[in-house]
Amino acid sequence: MRPRVLALSLALCATAAQADEGMWMPSQLPEIARQLRAAGFQGDPADLAELTRAPMNAVVKVGGATGAFVSADGLVLTNHHVAFGVIQYNSKPERDLIHDGFVAADRAAELPANPDFRVLVTTGFDKVTERVLKDARGKRGRAYYDAVDAASKALVAECEREAGYRCSVANMYYGTDFYLIRQLELRDVRLVYAPPDSIGNYGDEVDNFVWPRHSGDFTLLRAYVGKDGQPADYSPDNVPYAPPGHLQVATEPVREGDYAMLAGYPGVTFRHRMASEFVQQIEWQLPSRVDLYAGMIKTIEAAAGNDPEAKVRYAAQVAGFKNTLKRAQGELDGLRRSDAVRVRREDEAAMLAWLDKQAGARATRADIDSTQKVLDAGAATRERDQLLTAIRSQAQLLGAALTVQRLALERAKPDAERESGYQQRDETLIAGRLKQVQRRYWPAVEKELLRHLLLQYKALPKTLRVAEIDRVFEGEDEAALKRSIDALYAHTGFGEEAARLEAMKSDAKALQSSDDSLLRAAAALMPAFLRIEEEGKVREGELLRLRPAYMRALIAYRHSQGRAVYPDANSTLRVSYGAVSTMDPRDGVRYQALTTVQGILEKHTGSKPFDAPQSLREAIAKGDFGSTADPQLKTQTVDFLTNLDTTGGNSGSPVLDARGRLIGLNFDSNWEAVSASWMYDPRYKRAIHVDMRYLRWLLAKVYPAPHLLKEMQLPAE
Amino acid sequence: MRPRVLALSLALCATAAQADEGMWMPSQLPEIARQLRAAGFQGDPADLAELTRAPMNAVVKVGGATGAFVSADGLVLTNHHVAFGVIQYNSKPERDLIHDGFVAADRAAELPANPDFRVLVTTGFDKVTERVLKDARGKRGRAYYDAVDAASKALVAECEREAGYRCSVANMYYGTDFYLIRQLELRDVRLVYAPPDSIGNYGDEVDNFVWPRHSGDFTLLRAYVGKDGQPADYSPDNVPYAPPGHLQVATEPVREGDYAMLAGYPGVTFRHRMASEFVQQIEWQLPSRVDLYAGMIKTIEAAAGNDPEAKVRYAAQVAGFKNTLKRAQGELDGLRRSDAVRVRREDEAAMLAWLDKQAGARATRADIDSTQKVLDAGAATRERDQLLTAIRSQAQLLGAALTVQRLALERAKPDAERESGYQQRDETLIAGRLKQVQRRYWPAVEKELLRHLLLQYKALPKTLRVAEIDRVFEGEDEAALKRSIDALYAHTGFGEEAARLEAMKSDAKALQSSDDSLLRAAAALMPAFLRIEEEGKVREGELLRLRPAYMRALIAYRHSQGRAVYPDANSTLRVSYGAVSTMDPRDGVRYQALTTVQGILEKHTGSKPFDAPQSLREAIAKGDFGSTADPQLKTQTVDFLTNLDTTGGNSGSPVLDARGRLIGLNFDSNWEAVSASWMYDPRYKRAIHVDMRYLRWLLAKVYPAPHLLKEMQLPAE
Repeated sequence: MRPRVLALSLALCATAAQADEGMWMPSQLPEIARQLRAAGFQGDPADLAELTRAPMNAVVKVGGATGAFVSADGLVLTNHHVAFGVIQYNSKPERDLIHDGFVAADRAAELPANPDFRVLVTTGFDKVTERVLKDARGKRGRAYYDAVDAASKALVAECEREAGYRCSVANMYYGTDFYLIRQLELRDVRLVYAPPDSIGNYGDEVDNFVWPRHSGDFTLLRAYVGKDGQPADYSPDNVPYAPPGHLQVATEPVREGDYAMLAGYPGVTFRHRMASEFVQQIEWQLPSRVDLYAGMIKTIEAAAGNDPEAKVRYAAQVAGFKNTLKRAQGELDGLRRSDAVRVRREDEAAMLAWLDKQAGARATRADIDSTQKVLDAGAATRERDQLLTAIRSQAQLLGAALTVQRLALERAKPDAERESGYQQRDETLIAGRLKQVQRRYWPAVEKELLRHLLLQYKALPKTLRVAEIDRVFEGEDEAALKRSIDALYAHTGFGEEAARLEAMKSDAKALQSSDDSLLRAAAALMPAFLRIEEEGKVREGELLRLRPAYMRALIAYRHSQGRAVYPDANSTLRVSYGAVSTMDPRDGVRYQALTTVQGILEKHTGSKPFDAPQSLREAIAKGDFGSTADPQLKTQTVDFLTNLDTTGGNSGSPVLDARGRLIGLNFDSNWEAVSASWMYDPRYKRAIHVDMRYLRWLLAKVYPAPHLLKEMQLPAE
Repeated sequence: MRPRVLALSLALCATAAQADEGMWMPSQLPEIARQLRAAGFQGDPADLAELTRAPMNAVVKVGGATGAFVSADGLVLTNHHVAFGVIQYNSKPERDLIHDGFVAADRAAELPANPDFRVLVTTGFDKVTERVLKDARGKRGRAYYDAVDAASKALVAECEREAGYRCSVANMYYGTDFYLIRQLELRDVRLVYAPPDSIGNYGDEVDNFVWPRHSGDFTLLRAYVGKDGQPADYSPDNVPYAPPGHLQVATEPVREGDYAMLAGYPGVTFRHRMASEFVQQIEWQLPSRVDLYAGMIKTIEAAAGNDPEAKVRYAAQVAGFKNTLKRAQGELDGLRRSDAVRVRREDEAAMLAWLDKQAGARATRADIDSTQKVLDAGAATRERDQLLTAIRSQAQLLGAALTVQRLALERAKPDAERESGYQQRDETLIAGRLKQVQRRYWPAVEKELLRHLLLQYKALPKTLRVAEIDRVFEGEDEAALKRSIDALYAHTGFGEEAARLEAMKSDAKALQSSDDSLLRAAAALMPAFLRIEEEGKVREGELLRLRPAYMRALIAYRHSQGRAVYPDANSTLRVSYGAVSTMDPRDGVRYQALTTVQGILEKHTGSKPFDAPQSLREAIAKGDFGSTADPQLKTQTVDFLTNLDTTGGNSGSPVLDARGRLIGLNFDSNWEAVSASWMYDPRYKRAIHVDMRYLRWLLAKVYPAPHLLKEMQLPAE
């Protein structure tokens, strides 16, 4: 029996979801102009579709995330955590910019970023579906995949002929459409302003994913170009880049309910996956991930016992596992709370019922059925494949032997045909990883972990078992497995860095006849891993070919309801819109939309991560907030909350008001929203932003940079 | 430097405090009529002053707490936790009323409470200051105290001459005024309706002090009297008591901001203590209590080690210590957060400055100075006295020997002159405690605990040391103390129940010459403990004589500002008023004023204390809330929050609306308010109530009792 109250609130959700859900391609915004205006947008939606026009021409890709130009002289605003590498790169023991923060007194004082740091300005976003799919049509499986890959590479090569540009092909709607993205690559980036990490990262891991939040997670950089205006490597002679446009920081207050919009580069979402994939994620993938990681943590901790050296070697791995486990559990809890399986199933059933009444439904249905068969084939071996992946990636010594073996095989091919990750340019990285093994390995722990994983493998039905693995790891029970693992590790020199690096030079033949037991095992196992990998690639190719049927049906169905469909996130430029919002995390509790400096004092303990600098605490105590004080709250705000649709990659996204002025800087989302990569639940999906008034106040009163305020055309206080 | 924002919010507090703080004697309410009306009260404040008139004639003392008549036939509403003993008394293995709840189908089915359970109706509340103080005037110290005590006892004896009444003398404003309280004592009380404890105590210890809360913490009882209308012991022939008045449960919704008032029997507060006492509480008493209990917990846990029997014996003691420690820390945190020392100091300084300008100020100042001297004298030995109290109360075997010794001394006096707790009527209780020792004692742990406490005692300055204690516990260091404690415990039979009970029969002479080492030690220590006790009583008498000077000055000072002063709580009937209120526990978070049944489902885990009964969950799912649904929230409310001024003893207090109708039943307060016994901070002081609409819904739809709804003149659904 379903609760009436729940039914009511879910009904409300559905309405709200249509209003605020969505990571729209800029080109789609005119299509949803009515929605945008109803939500409060006061500009022309057509302007938002133009990458060469404001405000979109100001939004850039920075590091792996997002940023925006905020002055005519190439000043870029992004998160402290996005620019962290730049700050770290410029820190020295005697001048710790992470701890102290940094204010460049003038342009000459701006500090060059690490040479691989980039600011990318998207200048082209063109549909190239026809060219990408032309040769693929009629093909299947791996051949289809390879044809798409080849066409994409050709397009990229052609596009990158123009110097200073980086190009890529983005797959939209799961292979339905392809876009060629062209980005100007600015290579000389400099550090201009960073708050101390006790402001920029106030709360750190403790507050990560938490609301209420009190972090000033921002940094200002500046992009430089050569005197000719073209992208250039760092040179003292370079000049500030003059962007095609920049954002103006707002000077008016932010209030609950205000319209807000955000542009950025969200990484990956799964909103338009099939209902059966939701079922798999919720009923198998997440619970089994929780079990897998919980089991590995338990095994490592038991095997390390009280040995301090063993504990240290696995500390990072265990911390990572715990994080993975926590996220998986959070995602699972969230999807269950949102009743995601039922919601998606009902939506899909309605779509299929509608589809069956349309012309040409039969062919589409056939492709959808075929898609499901490919998914089913993958599901049949999912348990085994997850275990084998864990074995390859988590057993350090065995993994090193497999890497060496694979490299030897790939080296036999022309460089261009080698598997990605095993090309000539990757070899330094591989050598680095082989060296790292020492710091993350302890024999007793690795053997126990391997035995733990293999025991689970041995418990699989015989039909899923792999002959090569059964031969290398003989025995079906704990004791027998212990014997075969002990024997394997007793006769290997791979515990020594020198032996690993030496083996890296060998060819496949030499490895096969090696007297090192782990290298012989890797050679024996490799055919099985390659076979399984190939099966996966065939399925991937088939899905690339087949998924568009489902996607087109979904788009058509939504259109029939008067609704547009955004493609799932894929690290390309997207826009979402919504409002400054409170959130009710549970009955009787409301999260307010804005936090204030009072919360910094409440959280302050004097030790990390709640060690607000004295200058900040004194400034708060002084209460001199000037024009940045909130007129209603009568104090200085810090962060705010919106219902904007974001995911990983949206860090540093500019948040704009109804007139396109910059009011916030996105830097996190709330814990309740970790399941949003699969389902946007308007009750729980929120994004967390730095209030631009906090930035203005810090620049005006706490770590003053009047010249930067002036450059951004902002009041001095 | 003080933050400007803080100063602002403290200024706001002061205003609010004057509006909502206060546990007023009913007779004071006409005096604050203007405030009451300004807060929204719609009745005549003069009515509230009359204990014989509605609504005050409906408010009763139940168990150690509060309740109210809710029908003309003696139906009493109080908390599930207040009536818990009654429910437990009627539970049998085959009929577990705690688990199942109970609905009496008719009056014949109502179950008699345990015979010592009482409902007390306050019928008289008369000032008797003159009679109480007449003989005390001119006396000092212990003599003053004894004169007050004798006069009070005489008044009580005179009052109790009328059968069926229980009387007491209450000390108001710290000895300034005395009131004779006369209460009708109803001895036949029966259980009428109790929800299952999974409703009545939903959340139990986990949710204790917590908001948001989802507990239906109520029970209905009925008071019976003899056919002559007089109080009587239980008899099947008794008839329901017809109270002079009863409360009408409201049928209109409760909303944030609504006026609310509450009547009940708050236990003890310290709001009008002197600033130096605030300093002592915050700077010494609470921190030293935290240290003392933390040290005892650590010592017990270390001494018990992994011995399961030792752990079990001390489990309850350790749990109690942890609770004491947590409360002390919470109170300390709260008082610091409210800046209580500064606030009280500034208030007192202003009062004294005002006082010095009044006539007769010199005599008052002299008394205030003398009060401070008495307090200082107590403070001089506070460390030692706290340690000695811990030694007497926490070392079970030594404590038993001291009890036996003291009883022998007291037995030598006429019964009426014996120390309270050692009179003839107490001997059964003492024997019971001596038996209990076995279950709470483990030799190795007790000896370590004693050593731990004595080591702290030995670290005190020599001037504070006590000769008798130093003689019994020889040695200054750990090893020496260990030897003397080992010797003491090696030669005692007090580990045996029989020996303890046998010793209880001995007179003081026999004990002194006993060959049991602990009894000899107790005899040697007793003069010291009696001496310290007597010193305390002399101070207490002096404080009773001197404190009124400070209190009268405070009252006069407040009056000069147009403000009335309520006496600190002392378990007498009081009224507080305020409003249904949200609370902001920290920056960015708001607690809503009302919770809903949705929260019951959110918290439900299926296991205690979050095991909502299936019938409740189904009823919530069905969503059939009828007339009890909240019109704005569109669902069923459960509990609500007000800013009413309460403390321990207010459990079961009826919460009334502006027209005196019953809207809630008080049952807890929030964690942030544990410091409210010393200081009411309007930002954090809240009280938690069951919404009467939840009670009505449970009676209408979940565990139906239509006959009770009808009796309370409430809609059937």
